[in-house]
Amino acid sequence: MRRLLCLSLLLLNFGLTHPSHGHDRARAPLRVPDLPGFLTLKCDFHTHTVFSDGKVWPDIRAEEAWREGLDAIAITDHIEHQPHKKDLPTAHNRSYQIARGHGEALQLLVIPGSEITRSMPPGHLNAIFLKDATRLDVPDWRDALAEARRQGAFIFWNHPGWRAQQPDGRARWYPEHDQLLAQDQLHGIEVVNERDYYPEAHAWCLEKNLTMLSNSDIHNPIGLDYDLHLGDRRPVTLVFARERSLDAIREALFARRTAVLAGHRLIGRDEHVRPIFERSLRILTPQVRVRGTGRAYVQIQNDSDIPYELRFRAEDPDLAFPGELRLPAGRVALLEVRGRAADRQGQRTVRLTCEVTNVLIRPDTPLTAHLEFQVTLVPQ
Amino acid sequence: MRRLLCLSLLLLNFGLTHPSHGHDRARAPLRVPDLPGFLTLKCDFHTHTVFSDGKVWPDIRAEEAWREGLDAIAITDHIEHQPHKKDLPTAHNRSYQIARGHGEALQLLVIPGSEITRSMPPGHLNAIFLKDATRLDVPDWRDALAEARRQGAFIFWNHPGWRAQQPDGRARWYPEHDQLLAQDQLHGIEVVNERDYYPEAHAWCLEKNLTMLSNSDIHNPIGLDYDLHLGDRRPVTLVFARERSLDAIREALFARRTAVLAGHRLIGRDEHVRPIFERSLRILTPQVRVRGTGRAYVQIQNDSDIPYELRFRAEDPDLAFPGELRLPAGRVALLEVRGRAADRQGQRTVRLTCEVTNVLIRPDTPLTAHLEFQVTLVPQ
Amino acid sequence: MRRLLCLSLLLLNFGLTHPSHGHDRARAPLRVPDLPGFLTLKCDFHTHTVFSDGKVWPDIRAEEAWREGLDAIAITDHIEHQPHKKDLPTAHNRSYQIARGHGEALQLLVIPGSEITRSMPPGHLNAIFLKDATRLDVPDWRDALAEARRQGAFIFWNHPGWRAQQPDGRARWYPEHDQLLAQDQLHGIEVVNERDYYPEAHAWCLEKNLTMLSNSDIHNPIGLDYDLHLGDRRPVTLVFARERSLDAIREALFARRTAVLAGHRLIGRDEHVRPIFERSLRILTPQVRVRGTGRAYVQIQNDSDIPYELRFRAEDPDLAFPGELRLPAGRVALLEVRGRAADRQGQRTVRLTCEVTNVLIRPDTPLTAHLEFQVTLVPQ
Amino acid sequence: MRRLLCLSLLLLNFGLTHPSHGHDRARAPLRVPDLPGFLTLKCDFHTHTVFSDGKVWPDIRAEEAWREGLDAIAITDHIEHQPHKKDLPTAHNRSYQIARGHGEALQLLVIPGSEITRSMPPGHLNAIFLKDATRLDVPDWRDALAEARRQGAFIFWNHPGWRAQQPDGRARWYPEHDQLLAQDQLHGIEVVNERDYYPEAHAWCLEKNLTMLSNSDIHNPIGLDYDLHLGDRRPVTLVFARERSLDAIREALFARRTAVLAGHRLIGRDEHVRPIFERSLRILTPQVRVRGTGRAYVQIQNDSDIPYELRFRAEDPDLAFPGELRLPAGRVALLEVRGRAADRQGQRTVRLTCEVTNVLIRPDTPLTAHLEFQVTLVPQ
Repeated sequence: MRRLLCLSLLLLNFGLTHPSHGHDRARAPLRVPDLPGFLTLKCDFHTHTVFSDGKVWPDIRAEEAWREGLDAIAITDHIEHQPHKKDLPTAHNRSYQIARGHGEALQLLVIPGSEITRSMPPGHLNAIFLKDATRLDVPDWRDALAEARRQGAFIFWNHPGWRAQQPDGRARWYPEHDQLLAQDQLHGIEVVNERDYYPEAHAWCLEKNLTMLSNSDIHNPIGLDYDLHLGDRRPVTLVFARERSLDAIREALFARRTAVLAGHRLIGRDEHVRPIFERSLRILTPQVRVRGTGRAYVQIQNDSDIPYELRFRAEDPDLAFPGELRLPAGRVALLEVRGRAADRQGQRTVRLTCEVTNVLIRPDTPLTAHLEFQVTLVPQ
Repeated sequence: MRRLLCLSLLLLNFGLTHPSHGHDRARAPLRVPDLPGFLTLKCDFHTHTVFSDGKVWPDIRAEEAWREGLDAIAITDHIEHQPHKKDLPTAHNRSYQIARGHGEALQLLVIPGSEITRSMPPGHLNAIFLKDATRLDVPDWRDALAEARRQGAFIFWNHPGWRAQQPDGRARWYPEHDQLLAQDQLHGIEVVNERDYYPEAHAWCLEKNLTMLSNSDIHNPIGLDYDLHLGDRRPVTLVFARERSLDAIREALFARRTAVLAGHRLIGRDEHVRPIFERSLRILTPQVRVRGTGRAYVQIQNDSDIPYELRFRAEDPDLAFPGELRLPAGRVALLEVRGRAADRQGQRTVRLTCEVTNVLIRPDTPLTAHLEFQVTLVPQ
Repeated sequence: MRRLLCLSLLLLNFGLTHPSHGHDRARAPLRVPDLPGFLTLKCDFHTHTVFSDGKVWPDIRAEEAWREGLDAIAITDHIEHQPHKKDLPTAHNRSYQIARGHGEALQLLVIPGSEITRSMPPGHLNAIFLKDATRLDVPDWRDALAEARRQGAFIFWNHPGWRAQQPDGRARWYPEHDQLLAQDQLHGIEVVNERDYYPEAHAWCLEKNLTMLSNSDIHNPIGLDYDLHLGDRRPVTLVFARERSLDAIREALFARRTAVLAGHRLIGRDEHVRPIFERSLRILTPQVRVRGTGRAYVQIQNDSDIPYELRFRAEDPDLAFPGELRLPAGRVALLEVRGRAADRQGQRTVRLTCEVTNVLIRPDTPLTAHLEFQVTLVPQ
Repeated sequence: MRRLLCLSLLLLNFGLTHPSHGHDRARAPLRVPDLPGFLTLKCDFHTHTVFSDGKVWPDIRAEEAWREGLDAIAITDHIEHQPHKKDLPTAHNRSYQIARGHGEALQLLVIPGSEITRSMPPGHLNAIFLKDATRLDVPDWRDALAEARRQGAFIFWNHPGWRAQQPDGRARWYPEHDQLLAQDQLHGIEVVNERDYYPEAHAWCLEKNLTMLSNSDIHNPIGLDYDLHLGDRRPVTLVFARERSLDAIREALFARRTAVLAGHRLIGRDEHVRPIFERSLRILTPQVRVRGTGRAYVQIQNDSDIPYELRFRAEDPDLAFPGELRLPAGRVALLEVRGRAADRQGQRTVRLTCEVTNVLIRPDTPLTAHLEFQVTLVPQ
């Protein structure tokens, strides 16, 4: 019976508290479960600033990453590509130094790095955990990589299928990469760079036992490239670290304890992505009751920020399940269970096999997982 | 160096997993902390269906409430106002029966009720936890309320300042309401109905020891009245219940263990809203370090879906704080701490007093609370 | 130098004007260009109410459609399927009558219809522009369709690949449909129903010269099935009518002047979708200048609410174009033009061929169109 | 009857066209009507880059402004405040030069300027349309302003109530400002800077016949300070110019043909804001019919991106109107007209007076306007 829209009291009383007045400087946590014994840190190991061809002052990289819920970033300006140098003289360590200051204020970890920027082969490689980037500014890329390794750097190959260097968009492995591997100067590959996924790189990481990375390679202010307020976000490398520290990230990278979270796709080794999937979910109604050919709902809460897509392969004589189910991030979804016959009865444990189609353990191979719950069948 | 937007691989590989294809039937949990010893249940005790002047079939009320993260609703169709009855013959208990069926499938609690719909005084009153609503369909409202009470109902006064009955929008107390109180036929008042807040009703609940309620009084499909995807939501009564059951809700209502969550305003007794506020927050950086006149950030995570607005009253000889701070729902905010002098040193426990301006413990009286953290002062 | 966030004045002064206080009852126009000589009306010819198995009172269908920018809807409750009839006695014309009243208040056209709901063949068929739906409530579907035709109805086949009737999801044509065609009792087919596209139906409409339809078949309140505030919307049939009237819609339907707008896909005959595409766009910078191997931007404004996806097939000795371009709804996009050589000069008219991949003129055949602009080449 | 969610065909067929894949580089036009004889250009005359204390490379300022639908920006780095100069040597004209290059590519006008950054009085002043900013780098601010004026600059006072210079947040006029006025070295004032409105400055512009300005004073990447995807936007100065050119903007500024668009507030002289308001609206149903005490709706389309808030002062013996109405940007709103008596008849022209509460022609004085339409009264 309340059809009048009585705004006046509302405005007087609620006016000052509305969250859209102005704008908040705030961090949106990016929820991904930890693994047993490890923290899951959200990292971006490839970012640029005005100190090479990026467009922001370095402290902005820390500010952006903090707001997006990241734990760590590497600043990786190009050594060789210095288009701003007439205005801003080359100083290879400065962008890291500036970003680190803001990172400390925000308790965001900032890692010193550089992008060694050469034609293919070997293409572009990032060296992170550097001690002095200026010493990488040498004519021969072999010398640059050797120096990086001497400094203890973790080195990975960037965007191996980048169209400027691989016109068909497919990553290609060169003898030079074999040499780098042999000399312990190549430890990982970007399986995802920006919005590109390289299935070849994915396969190589598995074959050659390399670390998988997923980075933004951001040059612009992040808001120009990602619609952050609409759920779009930069790709991140998930690092499974013993603690929240630079040393722990470095140890995990060399130990290949990483996964890729890009768009809504999670990519990684089965041992890493399976517990993330399993720990993301809670079955809120572990026991449901189906009457005859009626239906019941199993409620599944996804506490992570990764939406999951399930495809079921169920052959059950008594119960019918949907072919697919989506589990949106932070939401409770309904898995519908229907009885196939009017006269069945008894209690059953259902262990439902599903492919998680947005979680890849190999190129074209989704994670296979199970959902388990009890069904009580009651005659109609 | 990645300036090309290489969409093709992305689309082929990520195309099937995007969450905006189609639409998900999902529940968005409404996060409000529990109180010590009590669950915080989110309830709407005033809803209509086609069985009076509402616009939806009753099962939709359960579906909507489940999706919005509610725990319980009452179906409270008008007894006297039956504009659809030529098409849909009056049947006072049917809307509850239909809604309950869908509520059971979704594990949402559905409470039987009716709106006794009279001119002022006494105006409109909801009786919930009824046994048989048809017995309230009597000429004299005194008989209807007596019957409701005989059935054990919890009875509350709806929208006491409704402009159709109180043209100035102010709630007015009549002798009839005193009589109802004396006869144990009035247990609570709607402090908020739809988008209207009645400060007079708020004061009466405190003076007369009545239960505070906040309900939607929804007639339309909810999506026509609330921009749910933009963070707008219906008002709810928070019920502090010993367990998730109808009996526990009823017990809590009679025991006045409720609060109002409407818009971004939380209204209730100090003993109820204070622990909600305190349990919503985590100080992520309980120890910060301020160098000279520099600044440090205390990071405060708000794990609830209630955004808080703080106003500080700080007089500290060594440290300066902002005048205001907003703590958006589900986010981490920064409380900036600045040193006032270059030469101070030592460790300090700061207990910062704030008014939580969107949490009211009386009309015009915000909750006063404290944030506590350590500051180490280091000379510049 | 403005680092302080001075909220106080802002709130006092801007507080009352913020558009997110409360909620607005408003219509969002759905912008689709008119065709030469015809208005483009946005219509949904398949909706349900509580008078069959729908979930809303009929006036809500008019309210929802008005808000979504539609021009006309048909109310098409099931004749045979009356699950609410114990509570709400069958009355086949009532839902139309109620909806029409609200439609008149909002100047939204409401068309009387019914869904003839039979097993396959012939499946479900909608008859709209009925005079008296009760006369369709007969045992034999042949009689029902003959009666509808006697009343002058426009008749179309609903969701021809509906999985409950076609388990593989593929539409299948039966001899019964040939008979209906022969008897002038089948004038169109739903190429899209809800979120399903039926390529077979699309092909049949072209082969057999039938009217293409795209309807929501909505049962729930619309907000439960479409995330309207996030850009999601119901499918609509675009009707190219001589004026905004029921008669004009009827005339256009029989004359097959329709197209399908579903999701972000526009489907129709070349003669209809080509002018929509062309009239949606304005080239804001029809003359650009390219210096040597530099680049220039052609700015293209899309004034419609249909986002277009272009794929270019350009072989130009002097100029390079992107492979793809998206033209978001209501936005200006940039078509990048690059010079291939440093020394070219002169003025050129470029007529760039593109496939509009989200506009289909046949199943799997996108619209081919052209963008025309001038380029002045200047040596580097 | 379509209860199954059949995703498979949808995904296969619609998968590639969804607009949320990836991210579009696009301009969102900011719709504000032109005035008779003048274009309404959306301008921001106060922006910073890394060349003073801003955080972005200058071309980003042009890119951001283009995307937000602006027509022109001024780059106004601080002369005296050069915190980055150890890394980036001072070069007062460079930020403009770099931004202009990108502006030309996007057809966005870029104006050279500087912020003369002094303590109060006179505080901070922007000089725009400079020829050589380096000549403003002199010890005495009087010399700097004289030099700016010699170069033909348009000069305005920034954030006159900035709390760092006016701790109570109120703008204060000093004798120095009188001197500047007398010497033709002060032509306008920022009535809005960032999110702050200065009512004193508003009043001064009217009293002293100065140009009103509204600027962002942006230092960060715009996306860090404004939630652009949620409808939040930077303040802009509306300039009523004879054509889209730098000269025309300069002429309009000196001629005081500007208004302020900030948040959802429009501020300006009656002669400027009245036609903006009037040209924003179209009454879609200029004739409505009211039967007895029934109601009718006048549909009002707001084609601008400015939401309007109306408060009505209607005293009509026959008709009742709402007290308030909001006209959301780009939407159609309903003005409800109700009959006061059952027996009235005849046709009436209604000229309804309203205050447009978010459009200010003086501090605390809203624009008064009229809505005109015909009502036909029909007896019940």
